[in-house]
Amino acid sequence: VTVQGTLEKAIGAVTQEQIRVIGSGRTDAGGHALHQVVAFSTESALPVETLCRAINAHLPDDVSVTGATDADIDFHPRFDAASRSYRYLIWNRPIPSPFWVGRAAFVKPRLEESAMDVAARSLLGRHDFSAFADVREETNHYRHMYRAECRRDGDLVVLELEASGFMRQMVRSIAGTLIRIGSGRMSPESMQEILTSLDRSRAGDTAPACGLYLIDVRYADSASPNGLGDPFSTKHYGPGGPFRTEESV
Amino acid sequence: VTVQGTLEKAIGAVTQEQIRVIGSGRTDAGGHALHQVVAFSTESALPVETLCRAINAHLPDDVSVTGATDADIDFHPRFDAASRSYRYLIWNRPIPSPFWVGRAAFVKPRLEESAMDVAARSLLGRHDFSAFADVREETNHYRHMYRAECRRDGDLVVLELEASGFMRQMVRSIAGTLIRIGSGRMSPESMQEILTSLDRSRAGDTAPACGLYLIDVRYADSASPNGLGDPFSTKHYGPGGPFRTEESV
Repeated sequence: VTVQGTLEKAIGAVTQEQIRVIGSGRTDAGGHALHQVVAFSTESALPVETLCRAINAHLPDDVSVTGATDADIDFHPRFDAASRSYRYLIWNRPIPSPFWVGRAAFVKPRLEESAMDVAARSLLGRHDFSAFADVREETNHYRHMYRAECRRDGDLVVLELEASGFMRQMVRSIAGTLIRIGSGRMSPESMQEILTSLDRSRAGDTAPACGLYLIDVRYADSASPNGLGDPFSTKHYGPGGPFRTEESV
Repeated sequence: VTVQGTLEKAIGAVTQEQIRVIGSGRTDAGGHALHQVVAFSTESALPVETLCRAINAHLPDDVSVTGATDADIDFHPRFDAASRSYRYLIWNRPIPSPFWVGRAAFVKPRLEESAMDVAARSLLGRHDFSAFADVREETNHYRHMYRAECRRDGDLVVLELEASGFMRQMVRSIAGTLIRIGSGRMSPESMQEILTSLDRSRAGDTAPACGLYLIDVRYADSASPNGLGDPFSTKHYGPGGPFRTEESV
C-alpha cells in the first residue's frame, strides 16, 4: 500500500476516472509528510473545494488532503519545485518516550545542538552533495542548500533543511553525521571536510526514516500553487505516525 | 493488557518478586498519561536509578518509567495526592490530521476558545461536581478546582484542569460541555448553571477518551515524591499514542 495508490483510488472514486497523480518527489518508507504536493488531471466539473472534501471522505485516517487548487495543464509538482524543506526530529533523552516512538529518532546521550547547528550551516550554498547521498540514480550531484539549522526544543533536537532538491537518503545522511558531531565523536569542522571529500564512507550512518518529515515544497510564483493555505500547523512538529503519511494538495 | 499489569510484570522480572503496584488513580481506556505516579514495595537492594533503568529495559515501547525514588513505607500515591492535572486536546480544523488521530478529539466547526476559557474558569473553587461526572461509585461529590483554563495553540484547542481529584468521566464531561459552548450551542454562563443544577443530563456529551492526558500529580511536601525530576517535556503536548500509556515513577 502506497500513499500514491491510496490517493489515486480515493480521487478515482470521486471522479469516476482512472486517475494518476504526480507528486513533488519520493518519500522514504517510514517517513512522514506535513506538506506534499501532487497534481492530477480530471474531466470532473466539481469545484476544487468540493473535490477536496469528497476526496478526504474516501481517504483513510493516515492520509489527508489539506487543500486543492486549479493549476496550469503543464504544472509539474516535481520539475517546477523551486525548493523543498525537510525536518528531522531526534528524541534526545536517556529514557524513550511512548509518544515519539516511530515519530522521531531516539538518541540517548545528550547532543550538543549548538555544535550541530554550526556544522549544519557549513552546508549552505551550492555544493556537490555526493558525500551525503545515495547517488546511484543521480546524474547531477549539485544541490543548493538555502537553509540549514539545528536547535533544541525541550527533549527534541530539531534539524531543518531547505534546498533546491534532495538526493536519496540525503537528509538522513546529514542527520546521521550531525548526530556524530552532537555527541562529540566528530568536530563541527568535519562536516565541511566530509562535504568536500565527496566520499560517503566518511559520513555518519543514515539516520532512521521515522524522524524524517517533508514540511514544505515551494514553487516559483509563475508555476502556481503557492498560497494554497497553510498546511497543518507545523509548530508542534505535527508528529508523524507509525505509518507513511502525506498530506497532499 | 493493562498498564498496571505490564508494569508489575516488568518490575517482577527485575526484582524476582511478585510485585503489586498502586497508582495515583484510574485512567480511561484510550486515554494517555505524561505523568503517572505508582508505588510498590520490594526487598531488592538495587539503587533506585539502577532499578529504573532495568525496569525500562523490560517495558514495551508504549510504557516508560521516567524516574524513581525511595518513599516512606506508608506513602500512598492515590490517598496522599494533593492534586491532579489533566489536559484535554481538541484538533479543531475542518480537515482531520493523520498526526492527531487517537491523540486528540476532532471537532470540525471553529471553536471560540475565549468563550470556553470564560466558562472553564467558572468551575474554579470547591463545588459538588455531580453534573459533570459518573457519580455511581462516589460518596463525596465535592472537589476543589484549582486551575481551569482553555486556550488555542494553532489548530489545537487545549483545556487544562487541576483539581483535588476527579470523578469518573469528569474531565471528558467538562470537555464535552465546553465544546458545546465553544461552538455557540450554549452560552458561557450555562456552565455555571449546569454546575449548580447537579443534573448530568444538562451537561454536554462525554468527549472521547483519545483527547485525555494525565499530566501531573502533586503531593504535599511531607508525602514525598515531588521533585522526581520533570516528566517528559509537556509543552509539545507529548501527543499520546493510539494505545493507553502511562509514564510512571
